[in-house]
Amino acid sequence: MAIRASIFLIGSEITRGVIADAHGRLLAREMTAIGYLVKRIVIVPDDGSVAEILRLALQDSDVIILTGGLGPTSDDCTRDIVAKLAGVPVVQDERAFEQLYGRIGERIYGVNQRQVTIPQGFRIIENPKGSAVGFVGKIADALCYALPGVPSEMHAMFYHHVLPELATLVGFDTKSLLELSCFLTPESKLEEVCKEYALDGIEWGTRVQEHRISLYLHGGSDANRQLMAEKIEKKLGKGLLYSGDIDGATLLSDYLLTHQKKIACAESCTGGLIGKLLSDRNGSSAYFWGGVISYANAAKEELLKVSSITLKAQGAVSYEAVIEMAEGLRARANVDFTLAVSGIAGDGGGSPEKPVGTIYLGFSSFQYPTQAVRLNFTSFGRGSIRRRAAVAALLLGYFYLKGEQLLDITETWQYI
Amino acid sequence: MAIRASIFLIGSEITRGVIADAHGRLLAREMTAIGYLVKRIVIVPDDGSVAEILRLALQDSDVIILTGGLGPTSDDCTRDIVAKLAGVPVVQDERAFEQLYGRIGERIYGVNQRQVTIPQGFRIIENPKGSAVGFVGKIADALCYALPGVPSEMHAMFYHHVLPELATLVGFDTKSLLELSCFLTPESKLEEVCKEYALDGIEWGTRVQEHRISLYLHGGSDANRQLMAEKIEKKLGKGLLYSGDIDGATLLSDYLLTHQKKIACAESCTGGLIGKLLSDRNGSSAYFWGGVISYANAAKEELLKVSSITLKAQGAVSYEAVIEMAEGLRARANVDFTLAVSGIAGDGGGSPEKPVGTIYLGFSSFQYPTQAVRLNFTSFGRGSIRRRAAVAALLLGYFYLKGEQLLDITETWQYI
Repeated sequence: MAIRASIFLIGSEITRGVIADAHGRLLAREMTAIGYLVKRIVIVPDDGSVAEILRLALQDSDVIILTGGLGPTSDDCTRDIVAKLAGVPVVQDERAFEQLYGRIGERIYGVNQRQVTIPQGFRIIENPKGSAVGFVGKIADALCYALPGVPSEMHAMFYHHVLPELATLVGFDTKSLLELSCFLTPESKLEEVCKEYALDGIEWGTRVQEHRISLYLHGGSDANRQLMAEKIEKKLGKGLLYSGDIDGATLLSDYLLTHQKKIACAESCTGGLIGKLLSDRNGSSAYFWGGVISYANAAKEELLKVSSITLKAQGAVSYEAVIEMAEGLRARANVDFTLAVSGIAGDGGGSPEKPVGTIYLGFSSFQYPTQAVRLNFTSFGRGSIRRRAAVAALLLGYFYLKGEQLLDITETWQYI
Repeated sequence: MAIRASIFLIGSEITRGVIADAHGRLLAREMTAIGYLVKRIVIVPDDGSVAEILRLALQDSDVIILTGGLGPTSDDCTRDIVAKLAGVPVVQDERAFEQLYGRIGERIYGVNQRQVTIPQGFRIIENPKGSAVGFVGKIADALCYALPGVPSEMHAMFYHHVLPELATLVGFDTKSLLELSCFLTPESKLEEVCKEYALDGIEWGTRVQEHRISLYLHGGSDANRQLMAEKIEKKLGKGLLYSGDIDGATLLSDYLLTHQKKIACAESCTGGLIGKLLSDRNGSSAYFWGGVISYANAAKEELLKVSSITLKAQGAVSYEAVIEMAEGLRARANVDFTLAVSGIAGDGGGSPEKPVGTIYLGFSSFQYPTQAVRLNFTSFGRGSIRRRAAVAALLLGYFYLKGEQLLDITETWQYI
């Protein structure tokens, strides 16, 4: 069972919103990474009110980390509160006193003297960058660390003293985490699928990002985490789950770079988003030629030579239109490969045959026959449809370049 | 006496340190600004453990804000916990059900159905950007708000519903708030300028968004807030500060809609971002024709007829190139107005004459002579340069259409 930890950040400037908390995430991430279960992060003012929640946290935490409240002013009350909860007096640490005396001399007799006091029976944690020492000791059964709130001081003490002790305590094994990137799947669906395929001792967590969901599997055996990931991918559909932290643009552009190919895009409903994503990284001119934002029908005709007959008979949102867009662009752009997208992203733009969320994608190259697919996204709003259309274009572009039949892939997608 | 508030953020991805808390500071700052005393910010996992600290917080808080834990999965337990503490059952809200049913149909019968339930007797807070509704009601004497954790959803609901209610509750005069939108200025610069022009009794707060900074002036007199805003704009430069919550794309597209004009864009370094921003809203086809992403020089020649001599002699990042891009596109697109952008966004792409951050913008129309300007952005990374280049193009496009001399404007900009 994971060792349970509670993190406390003491500072009125945080509860007043003057500064953002900088420590909570760092401490939580480092401790989670070595297997701790962070039960809570609590931010309280310098008014002593930490005592109450601290008492509550002692009931379900094996480790407590406190930062802040060790300064020289009367507001800085962490050591008194910890001592009181531990049932011991606050005493001066002679070695710390001598060190600080050596640094600041007689000025120590004043407010600074408090900074070399710790709860009796606690062990000091030296502060290489400041005057307030930290300390560690037991309150009931919980191991309690107190560190200054100043980032440079806290970081030095946490990384050099606290984290190594915590790692030893928990018998840390870094290898028990599998990070995955999931595309086009709503969070609720991913959660259902994870539950369905949950394997012994594996826990999971998700993080919704702009163009993907990061999925973390931890605990259990290596083999079982891999097996669970394979089952999830099989359920969601081919190519919707990848190992590591990767996005659709990186997947496609890495392939283009490796194979020294160039891409051009013809975008209608995405309005430039695919081009933006493909040019997000430095050096993208090695694989990205550019393209056309053929938003209006006139732009499709003028820049891509899509025929007016197609636009009238089949409409701009059709297999025929995206095929003509992709082929029309390839005729003009000196690239290996073009992709085209046209769809209905806007509220009120749909029809019974082509409701909002209908997207057509076309792919053309010198190497393979042109292909086109239709996708039907659930509408979660214009922005979401456009983002998913862009991600689908990037993923399917990758498979098209690998010579796959796109219909075989999309028919496995459980993206609704 | 100040009204006491406790803020709860529910999300295992925060306690696991996968993401940093983004809401705590924002909520604490906004509530402190209107006179609340934030007693604590508590971050807990999705495991239901919020209940215990929530019970404790109810003893000393008049207002409770909860974010997160309203999703469709079993981990998302906020509504059950609030209902239990309030001593009421969780019930389905019929209006919210109908709205979500209208959006996603039969798929509502599954995990999503939970998202339209609230504690009995609570009032719904509509979610314009997602499927989970929020709610507000009393637990004992405390007013308790629950909002989704997704930032775009939470922000919309907090700013439009919760904050105005909280302001009324505390007797804060919302009329004493001036909201402004600031472009192209770093937060630290804006802070300096606010300090320089601070007027009696006026406090300010900022909120950094993707393509702008929202600046809030509150307190003091109407006249003084207006005066302070004018001084700030004068210092930052013409057209970099606007009343209200507005972005560059809206500024330009509202103008185009009102005057029934159409735009087409030729983008190099922004790679499609300007087109994406101009097509973000429904009905954008009324003013957005499309354009060309002329990322490679070959694309500039092939699609926009930029001359190879210009590209060789002056380079693709030059006055001449953006003028030819804008005019070349206007020759092909049947629009009133074109804009073009070319610049150096990438690390390592610069030279002493044209360092990273150098951006040229060109504007062409039937109504006014073509104009081009050069901007020199400080490099805060590729993404930031591209975002600022896009925003500058939108702002200057707006002024170009109004017949202004762009050099007169950009020479006042203190954007570095």
